[in-house]
Amino acid sequence: MDFVTIFDYIGTFAFAISGIRLAAAKKFDIFGAYVVGFVTAIGGGTLRDILLGITPFWMNQASYVIITAIALLFVILFRNTLVRLDNTFFIFDAIGIALFTVVGFEKSMGAGFPVWVNIIMGSITGAAGGMFRDIFINEVPLIFRKDIYAVACVLGGVVYYLCMLLGLGQILTQIIAALSVILIRVLSVHYGISLPSLNPPD
Amino acid sequence: MDFVTIFDYIGTFAFAISGIRLAAAKKFDIFGAYVVGFVTAIGGGTLRDILLGITPFWMNQASYVIITAIALLFVILFRNTLVRLDNTFFIFDAIGIALFTVVGFEKSMGAGFPVWVNIIMGSITGAAGGMFRDIFINEVPLIFRKDIYAVACVLGGVVYYLCMLLGLGQILTQIIAALSVILIRVLSVHYGISLPSLNPPD
Amino acid sequence: MDFVTIFDYIGTFAFAISGIRLAAAKKFDIFGAYVVGFVTAIGGGTLRDILLGITPFWMNQASYVIITAIALLFVILFRNTLVRLDNTFFIFDAIGIALFTVVGFEKSMGAGFPVWVNIIMGSITGAAGGMFRDIFINEVPLIFRKDIYAVACVLGGVVYYLCMLLGLGQILTQIIAALSVILIRVLSVHYGISLPSLNPPD
Repeated sequence: MDFVTIFDYIGTFAFAISGIRLAAAKKFDIFGAYVVGFVTAIGGGTLRDILLGITPFWMNQASYVIITAIALLFVILFRNTLVRLDNTFFIFDAIGIALFTVVGFEKSMGAGFPVWVNIIMGSITGAAGGMFRDIFINEVPLIFRKDIYAVACVLGGVVYYLCMLLGLGQILTQIIAALSVILIRVLSVHYGISLPSLNPPD
Repeated sequence: MDFVTIFDYIGTFAFAISGIRLAAAKKFDIFGAYVVGFVTAIGGGTLRDILLGITPFWMNQASYVIITAIALLFVILFRNTLVRLDNTFFIFDAIGIALFTVVGFEKSMGAGFPVWVNIIMGSITGAAGGMFRDIFINEVPLIFRKDIYAVACVLGGVVYYLCMLLGLGQILTQIIAALSVILIRVLSVHYGISLPSLNPPD
Repeated sequence: MDFVTIFDYIGTFAFAISGIRLAAAKKFDIFGAYVVGFVTAIGGGTLRDILLGITPFWMNQASYVIITAIALLFVILFRNTLVRLDNTFFIFDAIGIALFTVVGFEKSMGAGFPVWVNIIMGSITGAAGGMFRDIFINEVPLIFRKDIYAVACVLGGVVYYLCMLLGLGQILTQIIAALSVILIRVLSVHYGISLPSLNPPD
């Protein structure tokens, strides 16, 4: 199991946890919470694969179904102590976003699309799962109203492209792009930086 | 017209009726109600076919568009007496879920996917239409909060697989799997059995 | 750049503006508003292309991403005067719906589907973007409750088919079908004509 796989599973776990907890807050039943967790974890990559015209990644291996089940068990067992782990989950979540962005960019690039499509596919992979989660639980998507989230994915894609232009190797490019996503997320949450909202007319 | 087709049409009719009635309660116009009814009826199978990478089933024959139109006419003509038919529609709905689950399982199996994907595809076929309906009318999906619904589809898929392991013929397998879905639905509603909800922390 | 392309861009611009303004009213941040504008503009055609099994149209050229960015800039710069342009945008929007309907019909026809599928694909292209927009901003889809909107697309498709039956040339057919969509939209809004709603039982 290589590093990319490990980080992929950590990200999946963190995404599933976030979906399950929000579904629980909306009084979903256990299976509903599982579904919301699963969709949060695999929704972005699934939309990307549908747009690219390939079989959704999670249909080729059972890992994602299993990791979501572990996340559900985890939330059930530790529901009263989870709040204390919020900082840990935030880091896991940031790792997930970063890795998903890099994986999405590369998958689109491998399918022969131009750079700007790759950046969009990286962003969809990183951010769309959280969007589906919020539509599911009938909330206005949080990622468009708080912190810098989807834009971190866009910038990660831009960084990936710049590293390629500079002729850096693939692994170095992956690391720099992923770290830039994590850094933007951490800084924006730590300093409470949000994008300006687009106010309605005065 | 064989039995599978008849049950398929009955299920489509029941699903469309449920979508149209909920849209009417939200003051959708007639065409909007038609669209919600149609999406309720074909949404699950459409998501399945998109995930499997094949042309959505309803694009190959006009039956589903027509049945939804009949369902709309039915609701318009009998809107004041429909409530008395609730038990009939519940049975139709259960037949629909059961048949859709079996059809979804088999379509995924035919495309060469492993058992756990087939179970998911059966469940999506049976349950995702109702989910789309609730997102459309801007409600938190009901199927994740009341009765045993999506889980009945999952268990129906498991029963299908067990029958295959036992070497039963296809038709017997279809009947047993479908009856198990119907039985779970009827028992869960009759005895008011729901899955436990995942309460937020104390 | 031919006429179809010019009208396509005008329609995209109008659709993006409508998404951005509604997102702004819901206090989305700038990037969120961009995403809602983009989804409003390309959502219908994307769903159509996914159903037809082809690569979504906007992934082949950057125009739609760029036009949405211009629309965002436009809303930011003129947000206090936009209201005065409502009539202009209504016409742009009607042109967009009309053109999208014709393009969707033809793309489905080109893929070899029967007439009723072509009519549905035209309607999805014209109307589904506004539906996605409303799901995104967590509102009950407006297009199913006010004016004649989706039905204008359906009728435009029917008119297209009738022109074909009459043996009219392609360009004449496109113009008549598009004008009929625009006419229905303008008349329904001007005279306040809505479809009857499907009231719940007394």
